[in-house]
Amino acid sequence: MLSGVQITRTAVLGLGLIGGSLLLRLAKMQASAIGYDADPGTRAAVADRLGEHAVASDLAAAIEGADLVVLAVPLPAVPVVLSALAEVGYRGLLTDVTSVKDPVRALVSTELAGARWVGGHPMAGKESSGFGVADEDLLNGCAWALCLDDEVLLDDWLAVARWALAVGGRVTPLTSEEHDTAVARISHLPHVVAAALTIGAADGPVGPAALGLGAGSFRDATRVAATRVALTAAMCGGNALALAVEVDALIERLTSARQVLTDPEALSDWLESARAIRANWPPPGAKASVRLTRDELLFLGRGGGYLIEIHESSADVIQPEA
Amino acid sequence: MLSGVQITRTAVLGLGLIGGSLLLRLAKMQASAIGYDADPGTRAAVADRLGEHAVASDLAAAIEGADLVVLAVPLPAVPVVLSALAEVGYRGLLTDVTSVKDPVRALVSTELAGARWVGGHPMAGKESSGFGVADEDLLNGCAWALCLDDEVLLDDWLAVARWALAVGGRVTPLTSEEHDTAVARISHLPHVVAAALTIGAADGPVGPAALGLGAGSFRDATRVAATRVALTAAMCGGNALALAVEVDALIERLTSARQVLTDPEALSDWLESARAIRANWPPPGAKASVRLTRDELLFLGRGGGYLIEIHESSADVIQPEA
Repeated sequence: MLSGVQITRTAVLGLGLIGGSLLLRLAKMQASAIGYDADPGTRAAVADRLGEHAVASDLAAAIEGADLVVLAVPLPAVPVVLSALAEVGYRGLLTDVTSVKDPVRALVSTELAGARWVGGHPMAGKESSGFGVADEDLLNGCAWALCLDDEVLLDDWLAVARWALAVGGRVTPLTSEEHDTAVARISHLPHVVAAALTIGAADGPVGPAALGLGAGSFRDATRVAATRVALTAAMCGGNALALAVEVDALIERLTSARQVLTDPEALSDWLESARAIRANWPPPGAKASVRLTRDELLFLGRGGGYLIEIHESSADVIQPEA
Repeated sequence: MLSGVQITRTAVLGLGLIGGSLLLRLAKMQASAIGYDADPGTRAAVADRLGEHAVASDLAAAIEGADLVVLAVPLPAVPVVLSALAEVGYRGLLTDVTSVKDPVRALVSTELAGARWVGGHPMAGKESSGFGVADEDLLNGCAWALCLDDEVLLDDWLAVARWALAVGGRVTPLTSEEHDTAVARISHLPHVVAAALTIGAADGPVGPAALGLGAGSFRDATRVAATRVALTAAMCGGNALALAVEVDALIERLTSARQVLTDPEALSDWLESARAIRANWPPPGAKASVRLTRDELLFLGRGGGYLIEIHESSADVIQPEA
């Protein structure tokens, strides 16, 4: 039997794309779980799909008996849910699926002081949102950042990590700050760029012809510009500090690239440095083992590795090959 | 019977991804066609697939009896093929599939003066290249820009347009200059951005973790960074002038976006202007008819429309709905 903190019942608060997919997944696993959403229509849709027992009619009922609460609401709704949890006196484990971690960490420390929060971010999504597009397989195999910040107890982290693995994630240990820089680069910046490319393509007299000729590279480069604005604005705005640094770095890179457009050799060298990275992405991994210490876990995550199974005192992991 | 210039036999010079796919398509249509490639291994592969009759052993043999020659070599190889055509005295219709048009136009005017060149650009591609990945359906339904420059005879343009429609394209009439601006926006700029995003993601201590967390938005935003460097360098370098203008415009947009990251309303407005365009892309079209005049054809292309069938004195077209 595993030692440490056990999770026996999960309450999912917010049943949109991610929360809904999570609840569907937990139901499929026949895990003890219940969901709650502030929207009555969503609650009705969930009850239709999973039965009345799967959805609570209020937040207090949802968290009754739960030893893990998952915040699956958009960032702007996090404070009000944290207040509600404080009001009903919730003291158990808490995780979230929000796309930025430092702002959630700050909110938890003010709204639910002393909470046993382990920030999480499953890297899964779609352009569309809501329970209607939730999918029990959405989180299967997805990268799942799980924050091992200084104030997080290792046993709490390991309990949530085991749970995230059971749900289907590949768990990457990082600090909240490291997470926010990483996702600024690989998620928020691509969203900003997609919007800028879309607006630029449509601009001026050549706009209609440009949009008419757009093919694969335009389609993929701008796909996420069609995302619901509230989601993109919340995640970009919520991570504004880290994102601004990455926007600046991108502007610098574009400025340099512009200088070499007429220099075939320099242009090729620059493109090759990108090709070598992208053609090797995702980097092939090799199985290894780490001890369950804070240092070894964070070293793994910082190197781009992730956990696949946690044992009593070690974890099986995948590390990118050098 | 259709009046004007007739195309009865096509010679495809260069049998990589696009030229190879074109030859496979022509073979499937049982059209009279032959291919040539400077690489003996490619010629052997084509002969294996389509039979000895489908591939010529030299350029002169390929163009014998052809009334349309298709240049399907990368931009850097265009001058040498044009010289070879001049040497064997080719005087028939000439088109190409290169991703930039003004540089090809300039090369034709110096290397093969008086050629009946109608610049073309089927907007189809893959990250991989070569005859090995050629596909008889690659060009089916693709946007096919066809340049109606001042010096192009309308009858020549219509003949090549009929041929491109028969091959499966949706033909968009534009000038070479308009084409180059449009593709700078919707193809070359996305390639430059994909490279910059890839290099940025991998940079510094957070690089490995960022690459490890990359999911859908990173994958799609950077997909074309894995393209063979020679192809990307040729198309970006070949269109350097138009591309530099678009890089500058993107830098300006990113600079503005950076200023509103902490202003939820302004950020949302900006994202919404992109979402409204992208969610409506490709724009729904309505069937209409245009007369076969230079002005009506170019007006159609500039508006983002394209031809689907050409009759004696009119064409059926699709125009984006207002």
